[in-house]
Amino acid sequence: MTELARKAADNLAALRKNKPLIHNITNFVVMNYTANALLAMGASPVMAHAINEVEDMVAFAGALVLNIGTLTDDWVAAMIKAGRKASALETPIILDPVGAGATPLRTASAKKIIDQTRISVIRGNASEILSLRDENAKTRGVDSIHSVDEAAETARLLARELNTTLAITGPVDLVTDGRRVVRVSNGHRLMGFVTGTGCTATVTIGAFLAVDSDALSAAATALAFFGLAGEIAGESAAAPGSFMIHLLDALYTIAPEKLAQNCKIQDNA
Amino acid sequence: MTELARKAADNLAALRKNKPLIHNITNFVVMNYTANALLAMGASPVMAHAINEVEDMVAFAGALVLNIGTLTDDWVAAMIKAGRKASALETPIILDPVGAGATPLRTASAKKIIDQTRISVIRGNASEILSLRDENAKTRGVDSIHSVDEAAETARLLARELNTTLAITGPVDLVTDGRRVVRVSNGHRLMGFVTGTGCTATVTIGAFLAVDSDALSAAATALAFFGLAGEIAGESAAAPGSFMIHLLDALYTIAPEKLAQNCKIQDNA
Amino acid sequence: MTELARKAADNLAALRKNKPLIHNITNFVVMNYTANALLAMGASPVMAHAINEVEDMVAFAGALVLNIGTLTDDWVAAMIKAGRKASALETPIILDPVGAGATPLRTASAKKIIDQTRISVIRGNASEILSLRDENAKTRGVDSIHSVDEAAETARLLARELNTTLAITGPVDLVTDGRRVVRVSNGHRLMGFVTGTGCTATVTIGAFLAVDSDALSAAATALAFFGLAGEIAGESAAAPGSFMIHLLDALYTIAPEKLAQNCKIQDNA
Repeated sequence: MTELARKAADNLAALRKNKPLIHNITNFVVMNYTANALLAMGASPVMAHAINEVEDMVAFAGALVLNIGTLTDDWVAAMIKAGRKASALETPIILDPVGAGATPLRTASAKKIIDQTRISVIRGNASEILSLRDENAKTRGVDSIHSVDEAAETARLLARELNTTLAITGPVDLVTDGRRVVRVSNGHRLMGFVTGTGCTATVTIGAFLAVDSDALSAAATALAFFGLAGEIAGESAAAPGSFMIHLLDALYTIAPEKLAQNCKIQDNA
Repeated sequence: MTELARKAADNLAALRKNKPLIHNITNFVVMNYTANALLAMGASPVMAHAINEVEDMVAFAGALVLNIGTLTDDWVAAMIKAGRKASALETPIILDPVGAGATPLRTASAKKIIDQTRISVIRGNASEILSLRDENAKTRGVDSIHSVDEAAETARLLARELNTTLAITGPVDLVTDGRRVVRVSNGHRLMGFVTGTGCTATVTIGAFLAVDSDALSAAATALAFFGLAGEIAGESAAAPGSFMIHLLDALYTIAPEKLAQNCKIQDNA
Repeated sequence: MTELARKAADNLAALRKNKPLIHNITNFVVMNYTANALLAMGASPVMAHAINEVEDMVAFAGALVLNIGTLTDDWVAAMIKAGRKASALETPIILDPVGAGATPLRTASAKKIIDQTRISVIRGNASEILSLRDENAKTRGVDSIHSVDEAAETARLLARELNTTLAITGPVDLVTDGRRVVRVSNGHRLMGFVTGTGCTATVTIGAFLAVDSDALSAAATALAFFGLAGEIAGESAAAPGSFMIHLLDALYTIAPEKLAQNCKIQDNA
């Protein structure tokens, strides 16, 4: 068993034991599903976005999730306020730059959040992540147009440039802190037919960050766990409705040892 | 069969017959689930929060549900406007002070709503309810830190002080109008792994208030009904995803007589 | 096989092949479900409502869905801005005037959107649609009080008056472009017990509009498809929770040929 497989099991066990509070400022589409996913895996979600509350709320949290999926300027302001407080408290922050690259507002907002807070992990598809560097990258809505392979070396450089860990998800996920590169190949094709699976990958990383201070291992093990839940859901569901319900079930039922045995994490690939 | 068991069956039958419109100003996380729960049990939900609409909408409603789960100041203003109109019309109002005690904004907002409207029932966990009295109560996010037992006598006093009925939910629910105390022990442990089950208990009370003018019996019978739905869901589901779907199914399928026979309501315990 | 049955199959096949991006500015209650429905049927949903983003986002879209279910003035302003851009680009727009007729804000907002943009299809229940003409129509919350039959001739006239296609849904759906009248009788009674099935009918039409330039055939074939999905869901589910999940599954699994064979579209009835 590899070190990261062991770590995956330990993180999952710690999550279920500690039930960390995860503070989410996220989009309207996925709020219900990501809250349910966090509860199912063993964390304790709270959603709060009021500018005059976010600092108080994040003070209780084990991690802060920022997701710009249905952003407006006032929500971004609240994200930055919460993010600054979290940065001061050394509470890990994960950013999901949904649709960055697709519109100027999204790209600019993601960059603003990155500039003004201390982000532990950014989770997105290749286009979104690449848009954080290259002003000329174009994405089509929230869909990816770049392959994970194209993105690998660029990602490593970009992680260094942004001084964070990047988790680029796709058929194979790539995680890099600018030094190590880890690939995770757990997952299931039906995940692409359920809204917010990317956002749910993000909150899973958020939950793992609350129990693992190493951002790279937190992100990689979280993605393996979430991907394995997809694989297990795919064993009993053949269409997206049933699949999304079985996925929540799997987040609840997967035992740490099962995760250790089935996670497909390739270190320094 | 006790009087309240009989009342439970009557309330459920009346709800399915009258299909009262329930106006909700609630949080983003649970809106979809609570709307589906209201439909499944036989009510007719509407969500409307625009400050220049809430008075018109609440005029049609059989009950008003106010829930501060993802509050901002403008939503609270709309809640108060709707609440004042409902108060003038003698339309019952139920308040869910989600996270009261956790942040100053939530505690202050809940108190403001209570001060400026005529609330029939407040439904929350023990910490939330106690925070409405004791400025020094501390809650951890939206989770409870006080037991129902601790809260019983305090609750009775607080119900008198606030001149309302309190429904404090937990492993055993406690309902008091400041005079009578009723305990409800229906429920299932998986309810704690689905987001918004507390909020759904609240809307169920809202629906029962629309057909039962006695706030204490409306709240107690609604909680028994919702808890029984949980028990039935728990018979066919072993994990939270499936459980939340079976819970909606149970709200639809439970017959009034089945409720009368299976509700666990202890009067003046 | 009728021409419209053939068209239904072709539209569904084209949808799955082209995966058009559907831009939604819609209500908080249904966002998750309609996004999942769009993904399941083969489209690519995006939700974006920021006034400083909607023009950029709609430029990528194959259709724009406007839904006033939880409207506020600023959301309506964003809808109009997006709608004007879509009109200029000749991108089809579908409007769901949720609750029009129930409150002055909703009726006025729906009319304002119709006046200021070029709407291809308006989908609503009979009350909502009729409220767009008759200031004195009264609806009760978001529920219908008029029958489809009452509405038929009025609808044809109103479609001409508004220069659009109307899709009036109920036990039997009526679609008219002011010239032809088509009735669709696919559907299942449990659809009335799931929140947002009307809104999901709307996004289905939106998706079909992205691949079919004839608004009447797009609307009629989309409603047949969505109704058939309900029928299939009703074969395996007897209560609303399970039903809504099976409905998503059916949107994914129905093959074009199965749709052609089972769609109940009556032309010029």
